[in-house]
Amino acid sequence: MASSVLENAFLFLVATLAISLVADASDPDILSDFLIPPNVTAVDGNFFTFTGFRVLNDAEPPKAFAVTKASKAEFPALDGQSVSYAALAFPAGSVNPPHTHPRSAELLFLVYGSLDVGFVDTTGKLYAQSLQAGDMFVFPKGLVHYQLNSDAQSPALALSAFGSASAGIVSVPSTLFVSGIDDDVLAKSFKTDVATIQKLKAGLVPKA
Amino acid sequence: MASSVLENAFLFLVATLAISLVADASDPDILSDFLIPPNVTAVDGNFFTFTGFRVLNDAEPPKAFAVTKASKAEFPALDGQSVSYAALAFPAGSVNPPHTHPRSAELLFLVYGSLDVGFVDTTGKLYAQSLQAGDMFVFPKGLVHYQLNSDAQSPALALSAFGSASAGIVSVPSTLFVSGIDDDVLAKSFKTDVATIQKLKAGLVPKA
Amino acid sequence: MASSVLENAFLFLVATLAISLVADASDPDILSDFLIPPNVTAVDGNFFTFTGFRVLNDAEPPKAFAVTKASKAEFPALDGQSVSYAALAFPAGSVNPPHTHPRSAELLFLVYGSLDVGFVDTTGKLYAQSLQAGDMFVFPKGLVHYQLNSDAQSPALALSAFGSASAGIVSVPSTLFVSGIDDDVLAKSFKTDVATIQKLKAGLVPKA
Amino acid sequence: MASSVLENAFLFLVATLAISLVADASDPDILSDFLIPPNVTAVDGNFFTFTGFRVLNDAEPPKAFAVTKASKAEFPALDGQSVSYAALAFPAGSVNPPHTHPRSAELLFLVYGSLDVGFVDTTGKLYAQSLQAGDMFVFPKGLVHYQLNSDAQSPALALSAFGSASAGIVSVPSTLFVSGIDDDVLAKSFKTDVATIQKLKAGLVPKA
Amino acid sequence: MASSVLENAFLFLVATLAISLVADASDPDILSDFLIPPNVTAVDGNFFTFTGFRVLNDAEPPKAFAVTKASKAEFPALDGQSVSYAALAFPAGSVNPPHTHPRSAELLFLVYGSLDVGFVDTTGKLYAQSLQAGDMFVFPKGLVHYQLNSDAQSPALALSAFGSASAGIVSVPSTLFVSGIDDDVLAKSFKTDVATIQKLKAGLVPKA
Amino acid sequence: MASSVLENAFLFLVATLAISLVADASDPDILSDFLIPPNVTAVDGNFFTFTGFRVLNDAEPPKAFAVTKASKAEFPALDGQSVSYAALAFPAGSVNPPHTHPRSAELLFLVYGSLDVGFVDTTGKLYAQSLQAGDMFVFPKGLVHYQLNSDAQSPALALSAFGSASAGIVSVPSTLFVSGIDDDVLAKSFKTDVATIQKLKAGLVPKA
Repeated sequence: MASSVLENAFLFLVATLAISLVADASDPDILSDFLIPPNVTAVDGNFFTFTGFRVLNDAEPPKAFAVTKASKAEFPALDGQSVSYAALAFPAGSVNPPHTHPRSAELLFLVYGSLDVGFVDTTGKLYAQSLQAGDMFVFPKGLVHYQLNSDAQSPALALSAFGSASAGIVSVPSTLFVSGIDDDVLAKSFKTDVATIQKLKAGLVPKA
Repeated sequence: MASSVLENAFLFLVATLAISLVADASDPDILSDFLIPPNVTAVDGNFFTFTGFRVLNDAEPPKAFAVTKASKAEFPALDGQSVSYAALAFPAGSVNPPHTHPRSAELLFLVYGSLDVGFVDTTGKLYAQSLQAGDMFVFPKGLVHYQLNSDAQSPALALSAFGSASAGIVSVPSTLFVSGIDDDVLAKSFKTDVATIQKLKAGLVPKA
Repeated sequence: MASSVLENAFLFLVATLAISLVADASDPDILSDFLIPPNVTAVDGNFFTFTGFRVLNDAEPPKAFAVTKASKAEFPALDGQSVSYAALAFPAGSVNPPHTHPRSAELLFLVYGSLDVGFVDTTGKLYAQSLQAGDMFVFPKGLVHYQLNSDAQSPALALSAFGSASAGIVSVPSTLFVSGIDDDVLAKSFKTDVATIQKLKAGLVPKA
Repeated sequence: MASSVLENAFLFLVATLAISLVADASDPDILSDFLIPPNVTAVDGNFFTFTGFRVLNDAEPPKAFAVTKASKAEFPALDGQSVSYAALAFPAGSVNPPHTHPRSAELLFLVYGSLDVGFVDTTGKLYAQSLQAGDMFVFPKGLVHYQLNSDAQSPALALSAFGSASAGIVSVPSTLFVSGIDDDVLAKSFKTDVATIQKLKAGLVPKA
Repeated sequence: MASSVLENAFLFLVATLAISLVADASDPDILSDFLIPPNVTAVDGNFFTFTGFRVLNDAEPPKAFAVTKASKAEFPALDGQSVSYAALAFPAGSVNPPHTHPRSAELLFLVYGSLDVGFVDTTGKLYAQSLQAGDMFVFPKGLVHYQLNSDAQSPALALSAFGSASAGIVSVPSTLFVSGIDDDVLAKSFKTDVATIQKLKAGLVPKA
Repeated sequence: MASSVLENAFLFLVATLAISLVADASDPDILSDFLIPPNVTAVDGNFFTFTGFRVLNDAEPPKAFAVTKASKAEFPALDGQSVSYAALAFPAGSVNPPHTHPRSAELLFLVYGSLDVGFVDTTGKLYAQSLQAGDMFVFPKGLVHYQLNSDAQSPALALSAFGSASAGIVSVPSTLFVSGIDDDVLAKSFKTDVATIQKLKAGLVPKA
């Protein structure tokens, strides 16, 4: 029947446009004060408020390294405003593994605890530093970087700012060893044997 | 003597180029991993580290509303990275007067205390909100906004992120009433008398 | 009935998409020669023509300062072209109150009459100038500026160009005193008493 | 009947949105890894693959100068990625007439054969060069340029890269003499007589 | 002698840096309120004022089509502000020959007189219009366009705004026929004979 | 002596400005037709020509995977033009290890041979494809990708275009295991033991 075809086509259009419109926005500059997502009908102060970080005050510290984000996905009012936050919670001895943000530099502020941080530039040079509470460190756009809480007793908390509403994250260990890249590609790339690659893959596989 | 003419011309060149080169950098995108100022000769982890916020941990709370900045001027490694921070310390009952940032939106994270915040869009509509510790609020790029710590007893501290290394600030009260704009322009603009303008100017004049 | 649900969903989609699509366009660069709004079906020379400024030739000079705009809202062909105009008509003795344009610098050309103009930079310094017919003045992006026709007898007319199809305007007097910002915030910000704030608000309230 | 009104409105919406969404994307930066067109439902490696240049290997060389493109129109995955290709096949003695690309510079790589190339800058200065196989030449953004295979015997093949997914092309001969610009405008512009203009138009008219 | 070598090197540095610094500025966004050229030592209201258009009021109308510009070259304060002006003076019957602006759209406002205008898009379609005083027309970025004052008696004056401080101009007739492009390239491109090309070149050659 | 102090200061200025000026240019848009480096005094067709790829025609195929670049560093005329090339030569069985380009997408054209290629998006999904001669594949900006010539007998050659004059490269194996990142950081990040990390480092260490 024509009408159910129409209905299906319509729902398909709604679904695909939703994806497309969100993806279509560009970081640099907008032609309005702010952008309103299609599904938002009333805009008041609540639209510009994000309460998802309140848990940082109340919560038990996490058992493993944990990231809480306030980017366009969690806080739609950021679309077109070119700024976002992430909170990084480090239990004693934990690491935020090497990763890049394809769409922004990261400006980390260490709220409490201590961190060993570093990044590698496109010439292969490592820039490392030990930070204490109150310090800031900037990781330039698109470069591989990490943070380690080397203290065996105390947790650490950092707040990171990004100059994009959607900085993105490429985690190097899972990108390499969980995504399904062929063992042979990896063995040749890392100049090692397939057994070592398979061992690394086994260690990183997500727990069921 | 030619050589002193040359020396003077040289020093003039150094001085004016310093201004020009700093001013010339553009926020959007750079063609290198990071930018190094002309006067920096060795680049290591310290160049990417900023310790100017350590005082926030140790210091006595300020007597009046106070801003501590980590922008390109204080932290040159931010040049070309399109991100910066400011810490806003509010004694009980204090206000951050209406102002704009010409080059970025502001994403405020309330560390402790409470704040009443608001901004006005280009249609004249006010978006206001009461924030508690852990909340975030985004002030869109270029719009007038303010923050008030309405609590009569407790201080508040906020950390604000910007999507520019040099967001800039236009403080509305001092821009209007301290910069020297003619009384007549202001009286006509605010549809009031010159005496009221002069009273406002007198109240805002910086203390000697 | 399914069909009326569908119809309502459809109209909602049309309405929200209309907002979203208009808001979504970005000033910097487009991937086509020009952008066509969803409701335009035939594009010819008329689409690229705007006749809304013809009134400037014929009309009686206005009784109060008046702005006529040719921006994306009035002239949709400007979308994506990063340029727009405004005509500013000043009766004798009138003022264009302090304001900012969040998305563009303004390049003012004085067609006839004379104007006293000025802007204040982010360091609080005032740059003022008296202009005669044929002069140009540039107000940098995002800074507070004003224009006064100090001549008691003659009107003045200026044409202003903007490097954005939607520069936006933040009028300082109405943003501060008509939008509904709390008296206490304003009194503290301007270091005056609530009575003075209420007097300013009363003077600026729009006439019924 | 309401449903056919609805159907028509729906199809109109689909058609106009399709235009608008494609036109709306901006080259500079996107907020996601890639953009997916509304009509694409499954995204895998094929979406990022373009096979339209395989013909270059197999095909008979063309009889006249011919361009094969891999831009956003032919290869939708390029949307938002700011890069595209064109292959330029020159029979012996053929020319790629003077043209501009409004949205990108062109970086030409000469695969085989030889070419005489040139562009004219905005001061009217000609930059010309003879290229041999393996050479590269950059035509700056928006400037008029041409390529000639002056060899009477051998074909030439070039591959050109663009820093936009949709560089666009303005062919000067057809823009001037096929689009329908009035003879009088052209005669005055080229300081010649209408007969010469009409002769040029006749020579360039597309064959039926 | 070392010192004169030094002096020469110094002057060479000044000269080349002047070129480089001017060329190096980017239109999109700057990190300061405005940019100050190296040779400017005092900045006040005069720096932001341009008086080069006063002649439009006083001058005799020109004998031939004439352009007066207020771009970055004539008015350095425009650097980084992404906006500029040109005044176009048309004697009766004169034409502004087909041209493009590689770095901006043009928004033309017709001050007095009448004009026949048009542009050709990248598909080869002509968009033409007859304008009367007070009308506006937008020529999209990078496309070939022209203006003709077809009135045999009256002059016309237009003011054009650009969304770049340095829009640039590529005049098609002189680019093709004055710059020195080889006759053979042009004859093949325009599908005509070398004699016609030489006749066109002779007509356009600048008078001694 | 003053003059040698001056000379030293001068040489320091030249050196540091050279770095700063090169680093300072921004990819998006320039205000001139092209940019001329400070050390270039005469600009003609040669400045816009790059002959560094001629070796691809003549040379013996390399013994190991090899990249030849035509970016801003090798071909200064590309500065400000937002486009560059790299040629990728794959002996039989060789791999281009996982890497990212922080400043551009990559559009690979396979000239001859065959390649297995893939990239991983920010959700961890792998997009892989087998390419034959004449195929194109786009690797989105900032994402980890690789290419493998799985053919045991035949070499392969690819030409890659970038939408930046300086796309940059972050090679994952050397960034992780040659730059000097602490064993403990890597062991924790890859959830393996320090011995495995040291084995990987040993395999990748550059030969003396």
